[in-house]
Amino acid sequence: MTVNSRPVILGQNQYGKAENRVVRITRDGATHHIKDLDVSVSLSGDMDEVHYSGSNAHVLPTDTTKNTVFAFAKEYGIESAEQFGIHLARHFVTSQEPIRRARIRIEEYEWERIATSGADEAKHSFVRKGQETRLTQITYDGSSWEVVSGLKDLTVMNSTDSEFWGYAKDKYTTLQESHDRILATSVSGRWRFNWTDDEQKMPHWETSYEQVRKHMLQAFAETYSLSLQQTMYQMGARVIDNRSEIDEVRFSLPNKHHFLVDLEPFGLENDNEVYFAADRPYGLIEATILRDGCEPRIPVDLTNL
Amino acid sequence: MTVNSRPVILGQNQYGKAENRVVRITRDGATHHIKDLDVSVSLSGDMDEVHYSGSNAHVLPTDTTKNTVFAFAKEYGIESAEQFGIHLARHFVTSQEPIRRARIRIEEYEWERIATSGADEAKHSFVRKGQETRLTQITYDGSSWEVVSGLKDLTVMNSTDSEFWGYAKDKYTTLQESHDRILATSVSGRWRFNWTDDEQKMPHWETSYEQVRKHMLQAFAETYSLSLQQTMYQMGARVIDNRSEIDEVRFSLPNKHHFLVDLEPFGLENDNEVYFAADRPYGLIEATILRDGCEPRIPVDLTNL
Amino acid sequence: MTVNSRPVILGQNQYGKAENRVVRITRDGATHHIKDLDVSVSLSGDMDEVHYSGSNAHVLPTDTTKNTVFAFAKEYGIESAEQFGIHLARHFVTSQEPIRRARIRIEEYEWERIATSGADEAKHSFVRKGQETRLTQITYDGSSWEVVSGLKDLTVMNSTDSEFWGYAKDKYTTLQESHDRILATSVSGRWRFNWTDDEQKMPHWETSYEQVRKHMLQAFAETYSLSLQQTMYQMGARVIDNRSEIDEVRFSLPNKHHFLVDLEPFGLENDNEVYFAADRPYGLIEATILRDGCEPRIPVDLTNL
Amino acid sequence: MTVNSRPVILGQNQYGKAENRVVRITRDGATHHIKDLDVSVSLSGDMDEVHYSGSNAHVLPTDTTKNTVFAFAKEYGIESAEQFGIHLARHFVTSQEPIRRARIRIEEYEWERIATSGADEAKHSFVRKGQETRLTQITYDGSSWEVVSGLKDLTVMNSTDSEFWGYAKDKYTTLQESHDRILATSVSGRWRFNWTDDEQKMPHWETSYEQVRKHMLQAFAETYSLSLQQTMYQMGARVIDNRSEIDEVRFSLPNKHHFLVDLEPFGLENDNEVYFAADRPYGLIEATILRDGCEPRIPVDLTNL
Repeated sequence: MTVNSRPVILGQNQYGKAENRVVRITRDGATHHIKDLDVSVSLSGDMDEVHYSGSNAHVLPTDTTKNTVFAFAKEYGIESAEQFGIHLARHFVTSQEPIRRARIRIEEYEWERIATSGADEAKHSFVRKGQETRLTQITYDGSSWEVVSGLKDLTVMNSTDSEFWGYAKDKYTTLQESHDRILATSVSGRWRFNWTDDEQKMPHWETSYEQVRKHMLQAFAETYSLSLQQTMYQMGARVIDNRSEIDEVRFSLPNKHHFLVDLEPFGLENDNEVYFAADRPYGLIEATILRDGCEPRIPVDLTNL
Repeated sequence: MTVNSRPVILGQNQYGKAENRVVRITRDGATHHIKDLDVSVSLSGDMDEVHYSGSNAHVLPTDTTKNTVFAFAKEYGIESAEQFGIHLARHFVTSQEPIRRARIRIEEYEWERIATSGADEAKHSFVRKGQETRLTQITYDGSSWEVVSGLKDLTVMNSTDSEFWGYAKDKYTTLQESHDRILATSVSGRWRFNWTDDEQKMPHWETSYEQVRKHMLQAFAETYSLSLQQTMYQMGARVIDNRSEIDEVRFSLPNKHHFLVDLEPFGLENDNEVYFAADRPYGLIEATILRDGCEPRIPVDLTNL
Repeated sequence: MTVNSRPVILGQNQYGKAENRVVRITRDGATHHIKDLDVSVSLSGDMDEVHYSGSNAHVLPTDTTKNTVFAFAKEYGIESAEQFGIHLARHFVTSQEPIRRARIRIEEYEWERIATSGADEAKHSFVRKGQETRLTQITYDGSSWEVVSGLKDLTVMNSTDSEFWGYAKDKYTTLQESHDRILATSVSGRWRFNWTDDEQKMPHWETSYEQVRKHMLQAFAETYSLSLQQTMYQMGARVIDNRSEIDEVRFSLPNKHHFLVDLEPFGLENDNEVYFAADRPYGLIEATILRDGCEPRIPVDLTNL
Repeated sequence: MTVNSRPVILGQNQYGKAENRVVRITRDGATHHIKDLDVSVSLSGDMDEVHYSGSNAHVLPTDTTKNTVFAFAKEYGIESAEQFGIHLARHFVTSQEPIRRARIRIEEYEWERIATSGADEAKHSFVRKGQETRLTQITYDGSSWEVVSGLKDLTVMNSTDSEFWGYAKDKYTTLQESHDRILATSVSGRWRFNWTDDEQKMPHWETSYEQVRKHMLQAFAETYSLSLQQTMYQMGARVIDNRSEIDEVRFSLPNKHHFLVDLEPFGLENDNEVYFAADRPYGLIEATILRDGCEPRIPVDLTNL
């Protein structure tokens, strides 16, 4: 078939089953362990015909990719979201000739044990942690790996040690400078591992996540901030300085504005005590932070806004 | 005016400003404390004319009720959501003659301190806890108080010790009995205090909340369950047995189904290991649990479904 | 069993399967018709034992109630959401002795036909209308019926012919009076039919819905407004005046504030041209409007705020 | 400063104010017209210092970008979202030396006039259309323009004329082939204009949108479908064939599964009449469709899943 004779051609395409909600229980006697994931499969390859003529000969059904997620939770268990994604991506690329690239995206929800009345932790009773959602994305093309992990919806606030002044002004500028403001954001971040090859030693994914999260939070807390951009850079730099397995971090940080309420009309002074937490609009601050010499690969837009 | 001569009359009505997002910082030297609330005001009283003719003479603007929320955060501080709601409700009913009843609803978001690199807790850096949302509703009619507190979105799971069998069957019944299943729900609960009068000793609202939450979680974890209804009753009974300040509990508990995945087509056995977490439809189990001799007052529907 | 000897007793309780998403296609040759519903079943009756001891002997599984929804879509078809709910409610109450009351809640999503290139309407291709969601609630206790229909998320705006002035003022009042403002709301309404008995002639549910919606919209558009309360009353009164099958209307109307932006700092005049559409906080205006002589039965709170 | 001596460097970065909700009313006598937009500004340029040292000297505050949105709604009016975005992008790049690139993203909500009781359309009363959300993104670097418009949340369904068979099978395949199924999706699409230069004649943005939407819907309705990929390609090809101003289309189409319910256990036949509309998981089908010879520029991921 001479595709190029068409006036309208097919570009990049991918397909799969999104949001397979798999929960894996591992029983260690009466003590149970949970992994709770939302797994999205996306496959690419020799798929022109299904678009042009509707022939499904090269199409492994999305229903099959769903079945594979659940079967692999049994066959391999779920040691970590990253490891589970690696099993899945390898399978699709190596078992179906037309499939040349697999991308597995996973959200992970964490649970903690309920404290029982005997002051112990329950063996098989859990409460969802509810804080951030963990993320990972595994991409495999048959030869090299790309692993980008991350998190979203981790809301943080410094109630002081934040200023904003000395900025550019034009005829539309009305903002007053501030020397003591609340700085709050809901962290959405992704970080790319430099593990790309089966020959390399694989990072310990769970330890890495806990350490990255810790360094980000500490950098947020410990940076005296002159701008959210400065704080964001410090968060990324702290991760890269401390975690040799990571070369690149991307953040999308909404500036969750907390406006000091004007209480003067009521004869009251507001000495950085009472704030209005606004919804929209909000500042949106985004950047890539890179180990020197590395190439950026995380897509620029983590949000559609 | 003879309202009764109208063919169409006004029934119950209420108005106010909803979702005032107030954040109160209290500084104890370098150590800061946060209260983060979403406050909704709803007022009723002699309001026929604004409906019939549009005369606003009895209407305190919703904008004013918003201002009052922020001003009171300064004037009274926010010791607890309940105490803050009591200040507000008393103010509206006692300061505006046409207003006969005030209802204050508050959502509260909890924060915890970030652990700093020195292994201490940060003094003014916080991460949102993200688990359940605390709720309270204060109603005052000028003479007596009703306080109903609660929570929503506290997701819990028992990975065993749950059965479901021996149920009624009809021609549409296809469900197989289960002797070992996952039981999971997202707790939405409300509990009513028996404090109604300024002459009574007021409960310690913060302690009460922590204790109610603890008893509910423990009852969930420690009940060997033959039905979600049984577990729910135990959760309510445990609260009422242990907390003398509470007379009534109402729950709305979605049965968050975790279906055991059939892996037989793939030659695999699923020994209570791999589950599909379903979205819709879901069981919805609701009840009031009462101290004997008390009258139920919490509305039956906590959800619009 | 002597329930009253318990220190903690069971109050109102109900259970069932929520959010059964049923789509019914009716084929009239090549021309198809859609009904697209989200059906929630809630049953009450002699259910003490399942709560106290976990005995499920009186419990028809929620899974069975789900099956019944889908089976009835075949057996009875879906002429209207109301009629479908009546079939379901009657079935549960009359077929299971312990069940004394059934409440069926239904959301309905409307579709319209796609215009084809031949300027005709497609016979079996549809686009979801996407405007309001239709609602109905059917309650049956074995002898009498209550039907409450409604809608939510119908967003409307008058860009003029709205004023707000002459209101009460206190020390927290800063709002300026307005003689020309935008009035916008997202209508959430419920209306109760006076059909309660199988002996009465049943209303034509589909015609009734279209007419109620039309009268509400027209009243919103045609009322010169001095307050949202006045407009709301007119919307309810217009429905009751015109639709003899309806005795009661309840509204919950957020005042979706559109604030005139102050452009003076930029040397510009804003002659009711440029508005900021705010999210939170918002006014929330709620009322029951009744045919004179009728008793209100629709619950007061349509929202949890 | 020698940035390259840092071990951790800054990559792509951008900032601005997101989700400015501007409503513009234009009065033509008593007849009013609405434009209702959500505008997000994102600026890039010489911004290293604000990240490295916190110096804001090059930073036009996000608050100023917000003010500019509202001021421009007065100064230029809002003829179309695209034209409005072009005014904004040009302003930021040409008025602030450090800013080298501006990206304006806009969501647009459409309104229609309420039909009044006199069978006319209201002059200044509107109901929000509620169907799809219109989208546009304008990018300007001081020399060339990129305009990508689109839509999201346009839900469509073919109740027949869809098959799925002849697909690849492996050991995890259990899906049965189908020769008559429902095909439904919620269209998320973007299309890129070949207008890039102020010297070129600008497209008529409003006409273009209406025509693209029409062609997409018609292609969906008129394609006898052997796979969602085939339908998607036809939707894109139809747009490019008919609209010379557009060179590239990208779709992200969830396959909104409608499963035929098995009614056999109840002794009923389901002749393509009763379907269960599932939520998760869902197929997700994505592709770029291009005019031959053009380079793809729309990012591959329109969704984070």
